[in-house]
Amino acid sequence: MAVQKLQVAVAGLGRMGKRHAVNFLHRTPRATVVAAFTPDETEQAWAKANLEPHGVTIYSDYNQMINQEGLQAVVIATATKVHAEEALAAIEKDLHVLCEKPISLSIDTCREVIQAAKAKPHLKVMCGFSRRFDSSYRDAYEKAEAGIIGRPPLSGLRPVISTTLVVSSSIHDIDLTLWFFGEDTPVKSVAAAGVVAVAPGLKQYEDFDNAVGIVEFYGGRVAYYYCSRMMAHGQEDTTEFIGTEGKLTVNGNPQANLVNTYTNRGITREVPAHYYGRFEYAFVAEANEFTAAALDNTKLPFNLTSALRAVEIGSYLQEALRSQKKLYFDEIGNRIEQASL
Amino acid sequence: MAVQKLQVAVAGLGRMGKRHAVNFLHRTPRATVVAAFTPDETEQAWAKANLEPHGVTIYSDYNQMINQEGLQAVVIATATKVHAEEALAAIEKDLHVLCEKPISLSIDTCREVIQAAKAKPHLKVMCGFSRRFDSSYRDAYEKAEAGIIGRPPLSGLRPVISTTLVVSSSIHDIDLTLWFFGEDTPVKSVAAAGVVAVAPGLKQYEDFDNAVGIVEFYGGRVAYYYCSRMMAHGQEDTTEFIGTEGKLTVNGNPQANLVNTYTNRGITREVPAHYYGRFEYAFVAEANEFTAAALDNTKLPFNLTSALRAVEIGSYLQEALRSQKKLYFDEIGNRIEQASL
Amino acid sequence: MAVQKLQVAVAGLGRMGKRHAVNFLHRTPRATVVAAFTPDETEQAWAKANLEPHGVTIYSDYNQMINQEGLQAVVIATATKVHAEEALAAIEKDLHVLCEKPISLSIDTCREVIQAAKAKPHLKVMCGFSRRFDSSYRDAYEKAEAGIIGRPPLSGLRPVISTTLVVSSSIHDIDLTLWFFGEDTPVKSVAAAGVVAVAPGLKQYEDFDNAVGIVEFYGGRVAYYYCSRMMAHGQEDTTEFIGTEGKLTVNGNPQANLVNTYTNRGITREVPAHYYGRFEYAFVAEANEFTAAALDNTKLPFNLTSALRAVEIGSYLQEALRSQKKLYFDEIGNRIEQASL
Amino acid sequence: MAVQKLQVAVAGLGRMGKRHAVNFLHRTPRATVVAAFTPDETEQAWAKANLEPHGVTIYSDYNQMINQEGLQAVVIATATKVHAEEALAAIEKDLHVLCEKPISLSIDTCREVIQAAKAKPHLKVMCGFSRRFDSSYRDAYEKAEAGIIGRPPLSGLRPVISTTLVVSSSIHDIDLTLWFFGEDTPVKSVAAAGVVAVAPGLKQYEDFDNAVGIVEFYGGRVAYYYCSRMMAHGQEDTTEFIGTEGKLTVNGNPQANLVNTYTNRGITREVPAHYYGRFEYAFVAEANEFTAAALDNTKLPFNLTSALRAVEIGSYLQEALRSQKKLYFDEIGNRIEQASL
Repeated sequence: MAVQKLQVAVAGLGRMGKRHAVNFLHRTPRATVVAAFTPDETEQAWAKANLEPHGVTIYSDYNQMINQEGLQAVVIATATKVHAEEALAAIEKDLHVLCEKPISLSIDTCREVIQAAKAKPHLKVMCGFSRRFDSSYRDAYEKAEAGIIGRPPLSGLRPVISTTLVVSSSIHDIDLTLWFFGEDTPVKSVAAAGVVAVAPGLKQYEDFDNAVGIVEFYGGRVAYYYCSRMMAHGQEDTTEFIGTEGKLTVNGNPQANLVNTYTNRGITREVPAHYYGRFEYAFVAEANEFTAAALDNTKLPFNLTSALRAVEIGSYLQEALRSQKKLYFDEIGNRIEQASL
Repeated sequence: MAVQKLQVAVAGLGRMGKRHAVNFLHRTPRATVVAAFTPDETEQAWAKANLEPHGVTIYSDYNQMINQEGLQAVVIATATKVHAEEALAAIEKDLHVLCEKPISLSIDTCREVIQAAKAKPHLKVMCGFSRRFDSSYRDAYEKAEAGIIGRPPLSGLRPVISTTLVVSSSIHDIDLTLWFFGEDTPVKSVAAAGVVAVAPGLKQYEDFDNAVGIVEFYGGRVAYYYCSRMMAHGQEDTTEFIGTEGKLTVNGNPQANLVNTYTNRGITREVPAHYYGRFEYAFVAEANEFTAAALDNTKLPFNLTSALRAVEIGSYLQEALRSQKKLYFDEIGNRIEQASL
Repeated sequence: MAVQKLQVAVAGLGRMGKRHAVNFLHRTPRATVVAAFTPDETEQAWAKANLEPHGVTIYSDYNQMINQEGLQAVVIATATKVHAEEALAAIEKDLHVLCEKPISLSIDTCREVIQAAKAKPHLKVMCGFSRRFDSSYRDAYEKAEAGIIGRPPLSGLRPVISTTLVVSSSIHDIDLTLWFFGEDTPVKSVAAAGVVAVAPGLKQYEDFDNAVGIVEFYGGRVAYYYCSRMMAHGQEDTTEFIGTEGKLTVNGNPQANLVNTYTNRGITREVPAHYYGRFEYAFVAEANEFTAAALDNTKLPFNLTSALRAVEIGSYLQEALRSQKKLYFDEIGNRIEQASL
Repeated sequence: MAVQKLQVAVAGLGRMGKRHAVNFLHRTPRATVVAAFTPDETEQAWAKANLEPHGVTIYSDYNQMINQEGLQAVVIATATKVHAEEALAAIEKDLHVLCEKPISLSIDTCREVIQAAKAKPHLKVMCGFSRRFDSSYRDAYEKAEAGIIGRPPLSGLRPVISTTLVVSSSIHDIDLTLWFFGEDTPVKSVAAAGVVAVAPGLKQYEDFDNAVGIVEFYGGRVAYYYCSRMMAHGQEDTTEFIGTEGKLTVNGNPQANLVNTYTNRGITREVPAHYYGRFEYAFVAEANEFTAAALDNTKLPFNLTSALRAVEIGSYLQEALRSQKKLYFDEIGNRIEQASL
């Protein structure tokens, strides 16, 4: 019997959309790409050269695309502001959805998508937190769960420390925290501080090019974040998980490959220029596992609600950064004026 | 116009054959697997489950397989002793060939295959030296060529040092040396020493579980090798390239992934258990580049004759090891009794 | 002409006092120890065995000791609560003073000592911030000053990040910040969060075993700190200095020595068990440089006032930790209610 | 009772002699320097400025110096060719001797010194193999002895690999091998190969600027060495000890200090420019342990005969390098024509 391949459409063919298209087409044995949408002419030309010869139909209209006969899933890699409406339209058409993060910067809109997904439990709707599929983070998670660094994350008192976070736009590190602490852990307080060091123009947007933040959770856990737009040496993404009996680091020594160069300047190793150099194979794993869940109707590796919570905590950090105030919450998530001692 | 995919057959479905089949089927966009051969029933069962559903015909006879209509290329991953005859039969049928190393342990047989390949210059016949496709070795090679460590490998006086080599059966490190020194560099002398440390039974086969070897080349270059069957910590494959103004190392700090574990025993990182953990993506690159050369009739990244030379130098090292004698050669490759001072 | 050696007395012979005594006696060519004070009988016995044979007079009374004929300097390594009064008494007697940090936990008392020292400018009075003498931190400082990571610390906008700090008792990392930012940089805000993970008894003292803190300075600089009492793997003290064009790390890969052990568990290196394993030679440099400044009447490498500022910032962090409030300051150091946006 | 300090004379005040003088004067609590000899006027001026004020008498005649009243020990750091005669004269005068390596390049002369030392067993006569005092090598040795990497070095079958050796002049790595294998392990064969890569003038002295060597020992152990005069990046001295169940490396990641610099060129660490940057504290330990052995009449950490054996094996390597022949030995040390299979 011939293999049944998941029939996938890709919406948006910018840098990340192209990568998703290639990954689902060529590196996901149980999936194939049958349709792609982009309103951009340059991207359409790329699609004609690279996707069409493999049998992919190219669309300039999203809604036309999702009506294509036989389509089973949509990967959404368009601009953030249309993620949610495209996801809702796809769910409406009974399509599985892999949506780039964030679903929306609006918490209400995130909730709407989660509601729509809950109403059709046979659909797999996932937010693309690629680090959840990275083999190093997974190894660290398994080691933490196995108690190698002491009390397990779900019951212990343990700070998680992640040294690279883009507070406003990226929510990867917040999602990592939720993964390791448990996505239902309530936030107790949020504080942050930022500077504008290299891009003075950011000030008018109340934005920063460097920021640090502390998120305190109920149950004795603390996360801290450092985010920067001035990583001269390349992609870093170092994470520490500290337990009562040890510590796990992920990417404490960033490197592009296994080469070291010894010269009269010392010993040097290069660093990936961009996040795809660090996370390429996590995206491939993501494509394969999303496909398997859709075809086999198995559980996705994490819930859609954690995407909502990541946006929520990200918005707290941004508010703490802009207002320079420390924010406090009670155990059921309501804002309060004073710390709960 | 639909994409033309290279029609590939895989001979042998042992550990490495399975990996080649999967790589050509699922990770090589411009190729597909249409046939596979194995005489082994367990392997045939695996093929029925994993290859047949993708349209692969399974054979228990190699010659039947290579007669399949439309076939364009064969990947040979059977036992070493049948590599050469299978390669010759494929060339005879006008098929491109990617043959696992070594082509043969007999130098004459290697020559025969090279002759057959030369007679059909439209065919791509390549020996599977996977390290030639590894991104770290390639980066080191480019840096060496760019003069970062001084005189370039093709004209300079420069020792290459490779600390892991299985002298008798594996010839990867010898091939690395030929790559960096130039495959025509003549050998001047060969010396080696070995011990039987963990497997006393090897003595009856005149074999060793640890060995070191020095190969001196004309033109002022020296390579040295360390090979061991007792790498308790896992796959290592550390290589050094030393130039007049610096040094390049590849995999000087072996690691399975990017996790470091800090406990009261210190800081630990794990190491890949096997070579595929280290070289998986080199094999994928190999499949893709072989395919491109076959479809586009472009040059392969290295010549088949280097496979012959690697076997030749490997046999010298083995003779030096068993006889405990130092071997000498003149500049055109003849054995001589005395060192040429 | 015979060498004139600085005549030094050591007050307190606990763990650190013993080390100072040995360093000034045996590892500081231009100094000698002539007197030592301890009220503790066990410490006196150690002194009789280890110091007396080298011509050191042992005292059980501090004031008697500082009256010894010919004495030129006192090293104060007693309990924190008597540091200030002993320093004042020594200054009164016209003696140079090297005082273990902190001078006092009271800011007013620190000020008193600073005043007394200022009144006798011929005396060298220094607080023992040993990291200022560590060759790695010094190298990082020189590199930062040379602009290797972008704008220099004294004028640029640059976060300093130090991942290990004992907020309440140790002030080393705060002093490092002042060193790199300039000791007069005014504080803008302070926030912190702590957990009690391993020592529940700390709660009654309003203390924590893990804490993170952010100190924001005017002029666009931010420092952040992580402090822990549960470093299972040993002494860590990792520091990052992030600039507009790069980053410097000190001790990013902690290690006790240069040995790596490869076994079937992976590759392991050990870590110093305690701070003296990390900073031993910084203390030796400190003894030698303090001695040189006293004998030659040259400038000490840093001002006494930074010791006051470090205590001040440490007390803010502790208050932020206990009250869970974010603290705000104006540019001249006054507490204010609201952030100055 | 006042401390009795070993009364030491230093012969030779070149780079290493100055360091020994400073170490025995200022960093060896139980020793003092009372005399120094140098025929060189510049060195004498240095001694007048740096040693004389500490009570050291300066001599321009070695024999006058060793007649100084009360002298107990001599440190010999003159040119290699006078080491032996100075050592013999010192032994004749009943003085303890710490002699820089090698005692002599002549094996017969080495034997003469060993004989003279044996005749006066109350004297401590030691060759300055500083690596024996290096804390990392000692840690590696203890780990090897504890069986962490499998069979212990004294009875097991285990290759030792040292990647940096100056074959002709330095014998440190050979001594390391003898330390780890046991100094009485007989040599079975020696082979080597060298190139002249950067200093063409060396050819007329039958010397090389890069060389590799293999020394095979009876009992199933092999050592291999790499020596180079072109370490552009600085001092390296990496050593591997490979056992049946693991491996120990010493200085696998050379570094000058604990700073890493992250810029757009990647991540760089510097390397010590010279051996004293790597081994400074080993020399201090050497001075202290030699002093303790002399004062307390305790055993030195290793025998003088290993210095003879190191010279012997060094001369074999040099012969193998120049003649390009492999050398063979029987189990009692006689040269033989053929390998003993």
